[in-house]
Amino acid sequence: MAEPFRHRFRVRYAECDAQSVVFNAHYFAYFDLALTELFRAVFGGYESMLERQVDLVVGEASARFLAPARFDDELEVAVSVTRLGTTGVTTRYELLRDGQLLVEGTLRHVVVNLGTHAKAPIPDWMREGLEAFAG
Amino acid sequence: MAEPFRHRFRVRYAECDAQSVVFNAHYFAYFDLALTELFRAVFGGYESMLERQVDLVVGEASARFLAPARFDDELEVAVSVTRLGTTGVTTRYELLRDGQLLVEGTLRHVVVNLGTHAKAPIPDWMREGLEAFAG
Amino acid sequence: MAEPFRHRFRVRYAECDAQSVVFNAHYFAYFDLALTELFRAVFGGYESMLERQVDLVVGEASARFLAPARFDDELEVAVSVTRLGTTGVTTRYELLRDGQLLVEGTLRHVVVNLGTHAKAPIPDWMREGLEAFAG
Amino acid sequence: MAEPFRHRFRVRYAECDAQSVVFNAHYFAYFDLALTELFRAVFGGYESMLERQVDLVVGEASARFLAPARFDDELEVAVSVTRLGTTGVTTRYELLRDGQLLVEGTLRHVVVNLGTHAKAPIPDWMREGLEAFAG
Repeated sequence: MAEPFRHRFRVRYAECDAQSVVFNAHYFAYFDLALTELFRAVFGGYESMLERQVDLVVGEASARFLAPARFDDELEVAVSVTRLGTTGVTTRYELLRDGQLLVEGTLRHVVVNLGTHAKAPIPDWMREGLEAFAG
Repeated sequence: MAEPFRHRFRVRYAECDAQSVVFNAHYFAYFDLALTELFRAVFGGYESMLERQVDLVVGEASARFLAPARFDDELEVAVSVTRLGTTGVTTRYELLRDGQLLVEGTLRHVVVNLGTHAKAPIPDWMREGLEAFAG
Repeated sequence: MAEPFRHRFRVRYAECDAQSVVFNAHYFAYFDLALTELFRAVFGGYESMLERQVDLVVGEASARFLAPARFDDELEVAVSVTRLGTTGVTTRYELLRDGQLLVEGTLRHVVVNLGTHAKAPIPDWMREGLEAFAG
Repeated sequence: MAEPFRHRFRVRYAECDAQSVVFNAHYFAYFDLALTELFRAVFGGYESMLERQVDLVVGEASARFLAPARFDDELEVAVSVTRLGTTGVTTRYELLRDGQLLVEGTLRHVVVNLGTHAKAPIPDWMREGLEAFAG
């Protein structure tokens, strides 16, 4: 059982709403941010994926909000790859503050050809990279 | 079976990413936008809710992305209230362009006391208002 | 002296920060939004500009914040074209709520060739369109 | 002549628009981000300011865009305090990538009382902190 990939960052003022907590849609941007860093760690980053004519589109997204994150909080996102199908990649996210789980979520991406946007099989270099964080 | 509440708006340039399509997190902001308009229609709006010491927090959010929305698209969100529990409200969203379903999603909110943020029962005026769009 | 172009819209919840007012950067997105609508009114819109191989890049932006806009406010942006140079277009923005001036600002854009991003003269169809709102 | 305060960060995917460059309004959010870090460095951060019943509101913002920042760029913001008046603080920003100046800008803030939002003199602890980066 692999350890999840971990990325740390701070909540920005512009991400908090009139309730003084992070607006719910921004948590999905945090997941994207953490996945970008995982890509950098395992196969050279998003740009290197595009250079190989591969792109990803999001098919599904979900989140459960257990406790709010606030301005200036230092957060950690733990990312695991929970499914590697033929063309689909499912990732799971845990957003933590000092070890407390605030939000958990999932994203399902589909690999597509950069030019045609047709579904494509997960390339070997991507599969091997993502397997390092497969739960 | 009630008709859903409908809200129309246009995709803004700043909401589109380098793939020239709406960035996934913004769809959740679109859901929020449509729900704000539904609140206006059925009980005088979000501010009138706060004046009555009632607030809502998001417990869960999910979306399935079927086809991308693009800059300047005129979109319609159809909102239905799919569950009215004791303290919880679940709403369902269909995002359409010219009748084509692009994204479908749900939000689950919990009613809380504005000051204490403790869970509270759905007030009668909110329940009656939301029942107009209960699926 | 031409009347300015006017565009109305509502402040969204996600645009307000923990001070319960619109976060300052979003006012620049409001200017962009109003300019997009002006383009639609005078030469068929942003997309029709791209189809003619013309794009615009922002060279300068400024704003003075006189009073805050709040969640759910209905706002009006009044846009005037204050300068049409050889390649540069300067526009001026007044953001109003019920006739009260909240924010005033300017954007300076430069016309570029869509493909090369080299500076290009303002095309005649753009100049004629924008002259309708030249202050 | 003091050295500016420096803060480094990466451009996020959601901040880039269909031109594949950072949307102009986000640069103002970057300035805010760097100022938040400067505050942390010189007087304990934004929250510690609020605890002392002091808040800041933005009076003016401006930027000149020389070259675009792109997705995943590692950027540095250099912040200098260019004016400390009675109630007003002006800060200057240089956004750099590998030493190349991409954007330069200014923000003018006004100190206000947290509760009343009335203008207030710059407190001594804030003035002393900011003087460390006065140009």
